[in-house]
Amino acid sequence: MPRISLLGCGLMGAPMARRLAAAGFPLTLWNRTRTKADALNDTGARVTDTPAAAVADAEVVVTMLEHGGVVREVLFGGTSLPPGQAGAAALQPGTLVIDMSSILPEQARDHARRLHGLGAHALDAPVSGGTLGAEAGTLAIMAGGEAADFERARPVLEALGRPVHVGPAGSGQLAKLANQMIVGITIGAVAEALLLAERGGADPAKVREALRGGFAESRILEVHGQRMVQGDFAKRGSLAIQLKDLRNALHTAAGMDFQAPITQALGTLYADAADHGFAELDQSALFKELQRRQGLA
Amino acid sequence: MPRISLLGCGLMGAPMARRLAAAGFPLTLWNRTRTKADALNDTGARVTDTPAAAVADAEVVVTMLEHGGVVREVLFGGTSLPPGQAGAAALQPGTLVIDMSSILPEQARDHARRLHGLGAHALDAPVSGGTLGAEAGTLAIMAGGEAADFERARPVLEALGRPVHVGPAGSGQLAKLANQMIVGITIGAVAEALLLAERGGADPAKVREALRGGFAESRILEVHGQRMVQGDFAKRGSLAIQLKDLRNALHTAAGMDFQAPITQALGTLYADAADHGFAELDQSALFKELQRRQGLA
Repeated sequence: MPRISLLGCGLMGAPMARRLAAAGFPLTLWNRTRTKADALNDTGARVTDTPAAAVADAEVVVTMLEHGGVVREVLFGGTSLPPGQAGAAALQPGTLVIDMSSILPEQARDHARRLHGLGAHALDAPVSGGTLGAEAGTLAIMAGGEAADFERARPVLEALGRPVHVGPAGSGQLAKLANQMIVGITIGAVAEALLLAERGGADPAKVREALRGGFAESRILEVHGQRMVQGDFAKRGSLAIQLKDLRNALHTAAGMDFQAPITQALGTLYADAADHGFAELDQSALFKELQRRQGLA
Repeated sequence: MPRISLLGCGLMGAPMARRLAAAGFPLTLWNRTRTKADALNDTGARVTDTPAAAVADAEVVVTMLEHGGVVREVLFGGTSLPPGQAGAAALQPGTLVIDMSSILPEQARDHARRLHGLGAHALDAPVSGGTLGAEAGTLAIMAGGEAADFERARPVLEALGRPVHVGPAGSGQLAKLANQMIVGITIGAVAEALLLAERGGADPAKVREALRGGFAESRILEVHGQRMVQGDFAKRGSLAIQLKDLRNALHTAAGMDFQAPITQALGTLYADAADHGFAELDQSALFKELQRRQGLA
């Protein structure tokens, strides 16, 4: 089994490290705050002090970092990481770098180009499913890059979830944006519909129950709809991050002259919600913004 | 078992009549075009020439008609049905009228008031699930009215699907509008997201596959998303009817001073789609309107 180097042992990276170790992959870990990597010592993984040291003998490198700027710095160096400690220059020729972070498609394409220039291979493979999906190994994994590289990555990705190759470099990140667009808009649909029914005198909990299993059925109606009818907006996914995702989608759309009128409308609503103090609530708190507009909250 | 009179034996009414007969309810049928009722002769149902004759000995009357104007005329008479042939005046005292047509909440409340005035009971109980759901007896049934009337209707409704009592008179129609809002908006979400991914170079069929089972999962992604990636816009549910549903939702929202910005935005998009010749395609043809906006169709 190929030696894997995992860069980033945060909320998502840590359970992914456990899945990879359990699948039998020899593992090397690096994390900016080393204690988070050390906490995975019981898996038998080796922990290093720099990305460069972590990737030196890896056949496959997996990155799971906060955003595109961090990925760039960890791979290519930057203000907080000297180039000598960064990962890319230390790669063995032919190493496959799988970036599972959620970053912009244009950043993913740029990273792929630079890695190819160093003789490495690259996939962008962001995930959906959160920490529960990472722990259970059931992540939805959207992969962009060369088909041969995807086949090479498959055993690694299948230890983490359900990978699908969706197109060339950057496509995985595009699919992730599509995912976030659908999630953000569907939350708006459920919020506006349940609130209208409630405003007209129906019981929104009963309306949600009545709609389950029909064409309005969705994971959002099931999970976020329940939060709305219970008025439970404790943060699981934050509204601020949903807003950031929609802005990334709109930025990407603008860059290819693509009109996205629905995402645009929802972007405005989530921005208004953030302005009115709901940014650090759950993303389903868009319901509260719609309540506020009716003078109800 | 109570004798049921079913008014309306169209695409939905006919399979519902078969379900009620199969459940053992003695059944009387009426349909404006009598041949459609006669076609159900093999169920043992009696067929009558007027709504008044159909309801005369019924304990429960079920209406399944095209829209609110038709329901009003069949119950209370109008230009194409003399009052002497209409149903309401011929009801036995205490008869329960269950209107399963999709009509406006304000119409449902008006009909309930008029029926109460005649000593009858009333429920509005529109459905979701289409002809397949009617045949299989798996309709989602959203019921508005008195709790006692709902309990009385339950054995009848359970022969047809999964009934939920969502609130007072008109609430069933509100829930149906909520259902149609969620369906119409989610179709927009899936269309815009898949098209953005395709525009950026990803394979939309693969993106749809990758997203299945995550938080973007919905019946719409499953069913209408598949139509979009296959470019198969043959009509099952028409875009014109989706547009009418959203307009009914906006009309209802306006009537209670309710802001529905997302439904508003989608109403504009479906109207544009209808203007551009997609009205008699499947509602998933909103995808074609979004393509058109990008200069792609």
